[in-house]
Amino acid sequence: MASSPGRPRDRSVDERISRAALELLREQGPEAVHIDGVATRSGVARTTIYRRFRNREALIAATIALFGEEPFPAAELPVEDKLRWLLEQVRGLVEEQLGRGVVAAVLADSDPVFSAALRARLTRRLKALQGQIDADVAEGRIRRGADAEALAGLVFGAYLGELLQYGRARPGWADGVIDLLLRGIRVPSGS
Amino acid sequence: MASSPGRPRDRSVDERISRAALELLREQGPEAVHIDGVATRSGVARTTIYRRFRNREALIAATIALFGEEPFPAAELPVEDKLRWLLEQVRGLVEEQLGRGVVAAVLADSDPVFSAALRARLTRRLKALQGQIDADVAEGRIRRGADAEALAGLVFGAYLGELLQYGRARPGWADGVIDLLLRGIRVPSGS
Repeated sequence: MASSPGRPRDRSVDERISRAALELLREQGPEAVHIDGVATRSGVARTTIYRRFRNREALIAATIALFGEEPFPAAELPVEDKLRWLLEQVRGLVEEQLGRGVVAAVLADSDPVFSAALRARLTRRLKALQGQIDADVAEGRIRRGADAEALAGLVFGAYLGELLQYGRARPGWADGVIDLLLRGIRVPSGS
Repeated sequence: MASSPGRPRDRSVDERISRAALELLREQGPEAVHIDGVATRSGVARTTIYRRFRNREALIAATIALFGEEPFPAAELPVEDKLRWLLEQVRGLVEEQLGRGVVAAVLADSDPVFSAALRARLTRRLKALQGQIDADVAEGRIRRGADAEALAGLVFGAYLGELLQYGRARPGWADGVIDLLLRGIRVPSGS
């Protein structure tokens, strides 16, 4: 072994590996993210990559972990602002972090290892969102029983539905979605 | 020309062309649906196909038109039942009519001609849905101002969001979505 246990990692090598993995993901889709492909693209030796990632699963998990996660907005913000923030997170994930091609690949499940890794990340994020919603319920900002899974599915899906129907997010598209999520479509019981 | 204008079309030829186009769409995606591919798959001569479809656009429009559309449910049904019906239509479109691979291809816009043709169909259906919603508003079953586009986007998207997050529709997944759409997440103003 060339590296001793106490030797600090070469950060430039880490960065070359990360950059290559992200480029392959966005340009060619999840299937292209594997040790050999990253070695070729990055110019880093396979053995060096294997010292950092014991297999493809670990490489993919590390690649997904590269996507930054913004902290949740301040608890005291209006729910409408929080929903708008959530929709913006979804837009950023689809358009900037993953890219539409990767989202499409996950929908078609063309690479089950990648799909599972992405879903694990989404599930973790969803648990955190449920915590935020619980706090909003406790403060009377959201009705009791509001379902984080259903809300997250709708917020996620709203953007995908917009893309499927219009090929892009139309200006102001989020307004109707937020209004509907906030108010529901039922005639209010108090009116 | 082998066929005179008054000669009735050979329905078995129509069916062979339709079946070949649908098979190609579902097995290989939108890009595979073109005159040459359908000729090869169906065994029908290119010239015969061109007599029916002047170009690829016409062939694709006819292929999409093969997907049946169920009539909207009876006006007097509860809104909840109508939402459940709508979600089921979306599920059927994604899983049975198009298939996930085709939905993914439209999201990634890998074949703009096909995407545009499918969107034209969705837009037409959406207009009809707005008519249904207007009637429900007039009857006091849905609050005034309910936005068919936002609702349709959410209903469409809800299923895609579920697939993206879980890889399948979990049993009972629609309940949370319908509950949220019906009630909204806001504390009711009358409580």
